[in-house]
Amino acid sequence: MATAYRPHEEAPSPALIFDLLLAHQRSAALCAAIELDVFRALGEGPADAASLAKSCSASLRGMRILCDYLTIMGLIHKENGLYRHSATSASFLDPRSPACVASVARFMGNPAMQDTDRHLADIVRNGRTSLPGEGSVEPENPIWVEFAHSMAPMMAPMAAPLGAIALDGLTGPVRVLDIAAGHGLFGIAVAQQNPEAHIVALDWAAVLQVAKANADKAGVGDRYELLPGSAFDVEYNGPYDLALLTNFLHHFDPPTCVSLLKKLHAAMAPGGRVATLEFVPNEDRISPPMAAAFSLTMLASTASGDAYTFRELEAMYQEAGFINITAQAVPRGPHTVIIGHVA
Amino acid sequence: MATAYRPHEEAPSPALIFDLLLAHQRSAALCAAIELDVFRALGEGPADAASLAKSCSASLRGMRILCDYLTIMGLIHKENGLYRHSATSASFLDPRSPACVASVARFMGNPAMQDTDRHLADIVRNGRTSLPGEGSVEPENPIWVEFAHSMAPMMAPMAAPLGAIALDGLTGPVRVLDIAAGHGLFGIAVAQQNPEAHIVALDWAAVLQVAKANADKAGVGDRYELLPGSAFDVEYNGPYDLALLTNFLHHFDPPTCVSLLKKLHAAMAPGGRVATLEFVPNEDRISPPMAAAFSLTMLASTASGDAYTFRELEAMYQEAGFINITAQAVPRGPHTVIIGHVA
Repeated sequence: MATAYRPHEEAPSPALIFDLLLAHQRSAALCAAIELDVFRALGEGPADAASLAKSCSASLRGMRILCDYLTIMGLIHKENGLYRHSATSASFLDPRSPACVASVARFMGNPAMQDTDRHLADIVRNGRTSLPGEGSVEPENPIWVEFAHSMAPMMAPMAAPLGAIALDGLTGPVRVLDIAAGHGLFGIAVAQQNPEAHIVALDWAAVLQVAKANADKAGVGDRYELLPGSAFDVEYNGPYDLALLTNFLHHFDPPTCVSLLKKLHAAMAPGGRVATLEFVPNEDRISPPMAAAFSLTMLASTASGDAYTFRELEAMYQEAGFINITAQAVPRGPHTVIIGHVA
Repeated sequence: MATAYRPHEEAPSPALIFDLLLAHQRSAALCAAIELDVFRALGEGPADAASLAKSCSASLRGMRILCDYLTIMGLIHKENGLYRHSATSASFLDPRSPACVASVARFMGNPAMQDTDRHLADIVRNGRTSLPGEGSVEPENPIWVEFAHSMAPMMAPMAAPLGAIALDGLTGPVRVLDIAAGHGLFGIAVAQQNPEAHIVALDWAAVLQVAKANADKAGVGDRYELLPGSAFDVEYNGPYDLALLTNFLHHFDPPTCVSLLKKLHAAMAPGGRVATLEFVPNEDRISPPMAAAFSLTMLASTASGDAYTFRELEAMYQEAGFINITAQAVPRGPHTVIIGHVA
């Protein structure tokens, strides 16, 4: 006498929870595929798992399962047993593409940063990174050399738009301070768009090697000066007409940001401007998703950084003495440019 | 003379790549929230970050950023600065809900398994887990005790439907072998649906303690016999009218599965049946997403397991001597039941 089973059709499903718990595999699978050079192999044309395994010196079982997984994630296509590039993987993951961003996996997938995943409950308890000292912004932290090398392709598409926004109406000879220059691409874009711009790039000495090489390659090396050290400690040697402060403020708490902005304000020429590139969430702090979610990266990797809203950034700028503070979305990216002016 | 910037509106975006590279944070954030008991605190009613931080003994900065992130992921809601349960988090993550599955994070987020993420390129090269020996199916691996405890809530909704499918038309006294019983819920469901069923539960001795406790709690302990050991080694003591083989074959390669099915076939009564619960991808191996993606978990954690298609499972059953092999989707879940009959 078996009891009949009556399904409850209206019951909600825990599918989202499973999805979130397994999401770590997505990062791992993409990093593994980049390391194995799968996207270069796919650039040779559609291929089955056996020939990809051969090209990448991998096992058949492993390659088949990895490529099926990448297909499920929407990154590549599979048809009749043959895998092939999607528009996304062809443009951004094939090393032969000039827009290839595969190197970002080296920075975003670096073990020290991913280690913070395991300590996230403690990080939330303590309100600060589990990394030693100031976390990612420890002086001379070598990750910024890695950043300068590997994140450049990701930032490159934003450099020209940022340069155009920052330079808007600013022609003729200008002195430009590029704080935390990193790969240098933003200052270089300004130099390319204004042939009379002179750039002073500030960052750790080891990082500036990368920026200088990029400036030389871009043909603006003769207008590119290096200022090694900490943005909080070195003498800026102003006055400047324009300062770039890209992807920097989010590493620090508001009082620290204000003190930096004050120091910067004192180094600007009358009528000068500071252009900040940031992930700027809306005031609800939950949209747009990518900018808002960036707060978690700052929680995990810094002592007191955050993705600040426009209202918060505006208040910092005002406290430091800037006026006419405006925000402008960067085309084709999740970033916003905040500009503050000197009276 | 600034050079005008001309945006290329038609350019595709690397957003998916960023999304995949950052996906590991989703798993970490959910595990941290469970560990901090955020979902119990939300069960008290809508709350702001400060009061949640207090309830969970966490920092304000950490709690605000974590809850914003969970909101961005769609797991909870935020309105006017107050966070509140979604239907999903209320049903499946609040420890006061009978359907709470929060304990699955202990199994799915266990460090040994997540460690395989870092070695995934090598795993793909070698075609097998980076874990020692046979990986997750090493004899007496303690993760299966953890599994039996923590995955039970996730499997519970499938137990009654599986029992109904497996028992269909099978009334009166039946002997049932539950291989790799784990939490025991599937055999227990059969015992509940057929009051004349006698269950023999096979698993590692330590795991069977969990199954036995669940059987006693369900009131079927007097019809619940324990058979400790390896499914490949112990004498089954047939004949059985029904055998359950749930979430087991995917750990092994096809020859191993066939040898187990042959051993099982020999222990079945004439007219008996074997019911296998599995993630069964379509023949394209890329759909449905959850069943197909499960292959990656088997690649990472076993020497030669896989998520097998129906055609592959049917071939294994046939080689072992079974006939009339059928597949049936389990309601409200990503699993399929495969049934093979004995002539």
